[in-house]
Amino acid sequence: MTNVEHIGIAVKNLSEGNAVYEKLLGVAPYKSEEVASEGVMTSFFKVGSTKIELLEGTNDLSPISKFIEKRGEGIHHVAFEVNDIKTEMERLRKEGFVLLNEEPKKGADNKLVCFVHPKGTNGVLVELCQEIR
Amino acid sequence: MTNVEHIGIAVKNLSEGNAVYEKLLGVAPYKSEEVASEGVMTSFFKVGSTKIELLEGTNDLSPISKFIEKRGEGIHHVAFEVNDIKTEMERLRKEGFVLLNEEPKKGADNKLVCFVHPKGTNGVLVELCQEIR
Repeated sequence: MTNVEHIGIAVKNLSEGNAVYEKLLGVAPYKSEEVASEGVMTSFFKVGSTKIELLEGTNDLSPISKFIEKRGEGIHHVAFEVNDIKTEMERLRKEGFVLLNEEPKKGADNKLVCFVHPKGTNGVLVELCQEIR
Repeated sequence: MTNVEHIGIAVKNLSEGNAVYEKLLGVAPYKSEEVASEGVMTSFFKVGSTKIELLEGTNDLSPISKFIEKRGEGIHHVAFEVNDIKTEMERLRKEGFVLLNEEPKKGADNKLVCFVHPKGTNGVLVELCQEIR
């Protein structure tokens, strides 16, 4: 884990969320991207060496829509940058962490990603992400 | 806001949390510190240019104990580094954000801190923090 790559925040309405975080952070989002496979529309803000990702569910089955229904808006996950996601997944499996996908999958912002079950990480949904080179 | 200074995670038991995050992050906590005024014991892990802070409530009235009682363990707040906390507090007040303390207060890790009400930030408890120089 070389850095906190981003912090993911679940919002009900991405354009309203963008307006709030632009005021809070003092910068505009640098990109917006749909991840259709996850049922989310995202936007990204750069803050120093990490990012804030806002996520809106695009359908009722989206993990983000379900999260908001259950817990309300708020921080959804924290993503750590890794150099080699497969090696890191193997290391975490050996340490007893439960991975939510068997193989890395394509995430937003040109990344391969894998999620770690929050039951083994004190309630925190952890994402590993590796830049696709 | 110049960087994500740290991400605060509420845990029931700090020594158990330390063991989990040491395995997850691959590094040991670099410090542990009590903030008696907030009723918390904390530990810090360095990850790239940001930190993970674990927090355990030291009494039932601690905000961390109440958070865990209500929502379970998990991410409690995200802290942004600022150069001048008073200027930033004034800027955010003018933008309509509600601050949870009128004046900066002493936090962990040699910081002046101020919290922003989560109702104005899509459910995210935001902390501003400035190194005490």
